[in-house]
Amino acid sequence: MTDIPPDRRPSHLDGSLVPGFTGSPLDRVDAWRQDPAAIMKALNDPRACLLRMEGLDPLLDADGALDWGHLAEAAWDAELALLGLIGGIPRFVALTPAVPHAARRSPALNGMLDYLEPAQAATYAAARSLIDWHARHRFCANCGTPTTLYRAGWGRRCPGCRAEHFPRTDPVVIMLAEHAGCVLVGRQRSWPTGRYSALAGFVEVGESIEEAVARELAEEAGVVATSVRYLVSQPWPFPSQLMVACIAPVADAALHLDQHELEDAFWATREDIRAALAAEPDARFIAPPPYAVAHTLFARWLAEQAD
Amino acid sequence: MTDIPPDRRPSHLDGSLVPGFTGSPLDRVDAWRQDPAAIMKALNDPRACLLRMEGLDPLLDADGALDWGHLAEAAWDAELALLGLIGGIPRFVALTPAVPHAARRSPALNGMLDYLEPAQAATYAAARSLIDWHARHRFCANCGTPTTLYRAGWGRRCPGCRAEHFPRTDPVVIMLAEHAGCVLVGRQRSWPTGRYSALAGFVEVGESIEEAVARELAEEAGVVATSVRYLVSQPWPFPSQLMVACIAPVADAALHLDQHELEDAFWATREDIRAALAAEPDARFIAPPPYAVAHTLFARWLAEQAD
Ligand SMILES: [Zn+2]
Ligand SMILES: [Zn+2]
Repeated sequence: MTDIPPDRRPSHLDGSLVPGFTGSPLDRVDAWRQDPAAIMKALNDPRACLLRMEGLDPLLDADGALDWGHLAEAAWDAELALLGLIGGIPRFVALTPAVPHAARRSPALNGMLDYLEPAQAATYAAARSLIDWHARHRFCANCGTPTTLYRAGWGRRCPGCRAEHFPRTDPVVIMLAEHAGCVLVGRQRSWPTGRYSALAGFVEVGESIEEAVARELAEEAGVVATSVRYLVSQPWPFPSQLMVACIAPVADAALHLDQHELEDAFWATREDIRAALAAEPDARFIAPPPYAVAHTLFARWLAEQAD
Repeated sequence: MTDIPPDRRPSHLDGSLVPGFTGSPLDRVDAWRQDPAAIMKALNDPRACLLRMEGLDPLLDADGALDWGHLAEAAWDAELALLGLIGGIPRFVALTPAVPHAARRSPALNGMLDYLEPAQAATYAAARSLIDWHARHRFCANCGTPTTLYRAGWGRRCPGCRAEHFPRTDPVVIMLAEHAGCVLVGRQRSWPTGRYSALAGFVEVGESIEEAVARELAEEAGVVATSVRYLVSQPWPFPSQLMVACIAPVADAALHLDQHELEDAFWATREDIRAALAAEPDARFIAPPPYAVAHTLFARWLAEQAD
């Protein structure tokens, strides 16, 4: 599925103001999760279907959409989790103990993400994060006992100490420092040649979004945020982050880079950002792909400048 | 410390636009965490100090501020975690295996939080969430092996499967549905008599902040958000949430309450909110305490209405 010609790539994604991995039609039917009768009804619904996957990668149908099969296709040792309903039809994923770590993307998946519709990618994101969490959280962090699935797959419970464990979502701030009409872009040594993006980092315990933005900008680039403005968010299923995108004006453009975090950084002009989003061959840098919220952040900042 | 007279309560907290648990002077010195020499230097700094606590509650000095003692005061079986620096002085917390679950607040702590300065409360929040996380995550969720502390207390590592585990922060959306100049407040059965607040819920894997807000409003109150506007955030250390506060205009005021989640809800006017924040005796409801972001959310919404 990776050799889809470039003209199949939905052009609406380039420079889109809508973040990737959002817009899933999934109805999560939270109330069903603690209702054994509702779960049984969903499992026995003849229309119920299973997301077809190969490891953590989705299988796509001929139209490049997520492929849904029968529940009977699940491996004999898999447990089923109820993702929710789409079009009133129960949608399940199979949980298997041995899957690759969802923090790492396969080359095939990277190819698919370039043309998968955001709403399709959003349903896949929920599935991928949930499967990964179960695979890597089969023991109780509190006492070491093997745990059992409950809440239709939206939790695990310890038979030893009674602790309850829920799928994890780690908030990450991703931000553009802003100064004199320019925004700060940086790159890590491990990234593809030419790729620059917004700076980012995990929100830590005991800090707000605004404080995390200011701390990361100070740590990584030595710039001091004078304010922080929230812009947009997206889930990121590698393995399970909540990306919170912000703009932060800074008082002084002088950079003091943390060389462990950033290989390079520079102040990009409006024109630099425009050319990068348009993927022009002589652009000053290569932008993150449209499905990354950094792309949306660039696009929204640029749209604001035009106002 | 709970019998502090009401006039000691800092009046600047009432109706404050600044969220509680923010403004800590802590410098988290992230770079030190992976530098054994820096950690040893901090531990051997004669000025290094330990946050004095009783279980998960802070001990306060005569001025009602956090109390700091010597590292030697830590229990013999405690491990030390480096919170960071305040005023250039290394600040540690003692990690002990047996502490109460930080989701539950002691009555003494509730009393303290009413008058603790937000910046002091913010440092305490980081400490409390970190201590709680270590206490309840001493085993590897991936394989069940007891884990060991690393990164100066900002992680645990499994000697069995090499998995790394990091302190957890769960994003929660808390929001005011808005219609015809009023906002929606609700109450849970377990809350103190008369208390109403904004609706709230955990962000799930595979959804954005905006999607979580819309889902929770639909699930709990049956109202349909037409847009979502981010307002402010705060860390909430019971045990470790990131509260993300939003406003969401809805198309229709008709309510369909989920009786499992909400005992009651109503559309509050500007005047209702003003009276509640001012804690007037004949207010229509009792507002959440100033240190809760719901209080800040009410105060900011009200300030916007006055503009
Ligand atoms: Zn257990
Ligand atoms: Zn392990």
